[in-house]
Amino acid sequence: MEVTRTLAQFLVNHQPADVPEKVRHEAARSFLNWVGCAVGGSRHDTVERALAALSEFSGPREATVLGRGDRLDIMLAALMNGTTSHTFDFDDTHLKTVIHPSGPVASALLALAERRPMSGADFVHAFILGVEAECRIGNAVYPSHYDVGWHITATAGVFGAAAAAGRVLGLTEQQMVWALGIAATQSSGLREMFGTMVKPMHPGNAARNGLLSALLASKNFTSAEQGIEGRRGFANVLATGRNYAEITGKLGETWEISLNTYKPFACGIVEHPAIDGCIQLRNEHKLKAEDIESIALAVHPLVLELTGKKTPQTGLEGKFSVYHSSAVAIVHGAAGEAEYSDEVVRDPRVVALRDKVTATVDKAMHEDQVKIAIRLKGGKTLERYVEHAVGSLGRPMSDSDLEAKFRGLCGGILSRPECDRLIQLCWDAGKLNDAGEVARASVPAAAAKRARAS
Amino acid sequence: MEVTRTLAQFLVNHQPADVPEKVRHEAARSFLNWVGCAVGGSRHDTVERALAALSEFSGPREATVLGRGDRLDIMLAALMNGTTSHTFDFDDTHLKTVIHPSGPVASALLALAERRPMSGADFVHAFILGVEAECRIGNAVYPSHYDVGWHITATAGVFGAAAAAGRVLGLTEQQMVWALGIAATQSSGLREMFGTMVKPMHPGNAARNGLLSALLASKNFTSAEQGIEGRRGFANVLATGRNYAEITGKLGETWEISLNTYKPFACGIVEHPAIDGCIQLRNEHKLKAEDIESIALAVHPLVLELTGKKTPQTGLEGKFSVYHSSAVAIVHGAAGEAEYSDEVVRDPRVVALRDKVTATVDKAMHEDQVKIAIRLKGGKTLERYVEHAVGSLGRPMSDSDLEAKFRGLCGGILSRPECDRLIQLCWDAGKLNDAGEVARASVPAAAAKRARAS
Repeated sequence: MEVTRTLAQFLVNHQPADVPEKVRHEAARSFLNWVGCAVGGSRHDTVERALAALSEFSGPREATVLGRGDRLDIMLAALMNGTTSHTFDFDDTHLKTVIHPSGPVASALLALAERRPMSGADFVHAFILGVEAECRIGNAVYPSHYDVGWHITATAGVFGAAAAAGRVLGLTEQQMVWALGIAATQSSGLREMFGTMVKPMHPGNAARNGLLSALLASKNFTSAEQGIEGRRGFANVLATGRNYAEITGKLGETWEISLNTYKPFACGIVEHPAIDGCIQLRNEHKLKAEDIESIALAVHPLVLELTGKKTPQTGLEGKFSVYHSSAVAIVHGAAGEAEYSDEVVRDPRVVALRDKVTATVDKAMHEDQVKIAIRLKGGKTLERYVEHAVGSLGRPMSDSDLEAKFRGLCGGILSRPECDRLIQLCWDAGKLNDAGEVARASVPAAAAKRARAS
Repeated sequence: MEVTRTLAQFLVNHQPADVPEKVRHEAARSFLNWVGCAVGGSRHDTVERALAALSEFSGPREATVLGRGDRLDIMLAALMNGTTSHTFDFDDTHLKTVIHPSGPVASALLALAERRPMSGADFVHAFILGVEAECRIGNAVYPSHYDVGWHITATAGVFGAAAAAGRVLGLTEQQMVWALGIAATQSSGLREMFGTMVKPMHPGNAARNGLLSALLASKNFTSAEQGIEGRRGFANVLATGRNYAEITGKLGETWEISLNTYKPFACGIVEHPAIDGCIQLRNEHKLKAEDIESIALAVHPLVLELTGKKTPQTGLEGKFSVYHSSAVAIVHGAAGEAEYSDEVVRDPRVVALRDKVTATVDKAMHEDQVKIAIRLKGGKTLERYVEHAVGSLGRPMSDSDLEAKFRGLCGGILSRPECDRLIQLCWDAGKLNDAGEVARASVPAAAAKRARAS
């Protein structure tokens, strides 16, 4: 069974017209969400430090760091946009594998689009194919690969970036086999890095290295023929179990991007049902923190295992506290990046409410479920059972939810008209004459002007 | 036990004066051999294709591709020199782990030395420390790590490059911990790639990514504190067994570079005893191919497993044929890169002698031993038992052997005076005011002139 070659054949031969409209729309949703995350994360310290280290080594400054005036060579731009878009851990999630699919693929592709103008139709098609490659390869080795300790967004992502870049570079089948092989040998990224600046760098590295793979293959730089399935190839070396039918079965019939989801809240997905339910009750009953005597949550076991911090001290710790998350859901009616600042985590009003939250494990709960009981000071109790949290596959964010999330992320960086224009460009990506326009439109006028002047 | 931090402390605090003279001399030998391999490999198709793909993305062209007029930014130069130096598989070998230690470390360090002038003393010290870090990390996970399918030169090399670059960048202990962590998360390289252009790219990638790690850490880009020993860190994820005492024990007392070896012949090390013995008999008895009726070898089992090709058709296949290797040892008295050209493999005189070679497994033979019986046409039989092949730790190449190898590699590229000067600079590396001089002296005058004119 030739796994790498079968996938390569699909990647070079598939026709854009054969992508169903619904799949194309999901791609636009993924792309919109990704651009919002990249712009939103573009001012973080992680990004500043990486740019301070690397910008001076840039080659031809042909590509944009989204949301900023900086321009870099396409490989460094791919690295930086992959990093910014994952900095808040707020990008899309392919729940079957916990891959964040857009980061590696879109970062490589959009940088390349600024060097080598391509139609929006080609861009979106290559984006869908790249996501398909990385998620199928992820499916083939999940969960054993993840359990060993690999950050699958990085390890599978490099294939997605190579596939997408290789497609728009017009690789032959043989060159695509090599590109996937060169990607395979660069597959890396350890879960040990979670909680550090290296974690968001992982999709950036995947984007940069995948792009490098496609560029080398385009000049006939050879690699192994069976980079994925060979005895010493990716799947045998980086996983203890594997199912190649996940890669080669039903190619062109099913689309992994259809299984993509978007986080409404800027924290771990296990807390989302509680936040969702608290916001529902708050809005329906116009709840104020001062009205509340206690909040009791019945949660899936993972919630306390992953997000059981009772007294978080920093914004980052707040993300790992279902107590803080429930409190801001009531106080602010939101749990975006702003609600995980150090200030909000230390806000006495939030702290007071947080201390009134209890959580107990209820094994009957699925991962996207919760039972909430809010006891009011008058003695009345409000209850809510959330069956599917918003943002799950069972209750996806609507297009306008995604726009609102985008505005929340980009509002401090782009003006209202800049936001409007960028949102529209993302929805229309498939129709653009030049997909690179999206990258340029992500830069606020003031930053662009500063960059031109310097 | 803090493994990463203990190693980081050693790397930032060790004093050059505490390196024994003998260790320094071994470093010079390693460096001389590495420069020869890099210059010698610099015109290979692997290098041409990589440069065709990547040169146009170069940033500031501050560093030299050894042996060529091309200049590249330091990260791409590190990538290219790591690649050229491993292209012929003729670089140094740390036999305990089969790591080729110089490639990742010297490639990163020499590129950096051209950007940021450093004394030869600092250069050699950092080189020794980098080799120490990569080989100790290799020792800790060998052999299980290699057996899984990892190309250990790549996976351990990235730590060596980060350590060496981090040392000359003056990282603090905390920054060195981060640099090692950023290196850990980029550790990759699959044995599946052996026999393709990607294999020599592995030490290049390790050099480039290690350098990137040190540069990021120098700007306080954070990573995990236990990149090596953490639960989801390098040693747990990329190996099934590990011994951290190999990393932390006797730091500053033993030196892994003392265990470095150099190949006298441009092929797999298991064939070296046979080549060595054949050359000895040839020279002592002034043998000609025409005088010989048969050559019978009694060999270690691995010889036939790895190099049992009876009728090689190309130069590359010739490297995997103990029959061809023994034949050129008699016909040419050498087994350098020249003896593994397509022409030599097809030369009727070599083919005729090759067909007279038989090899049988003798389980009494160690890996660096062989028994040879050459039957002459007159009926006489010459015998030779090689106990330690030349180039092994038991019978290392002499300094003048290394010079002769260097001349064989560089002769077609550099003039005689250029070779002389470069050899001298390598021996004197520790005394130079500016270590980068070695890189510039590796470029033949004609290529330098062409580069200036373009």
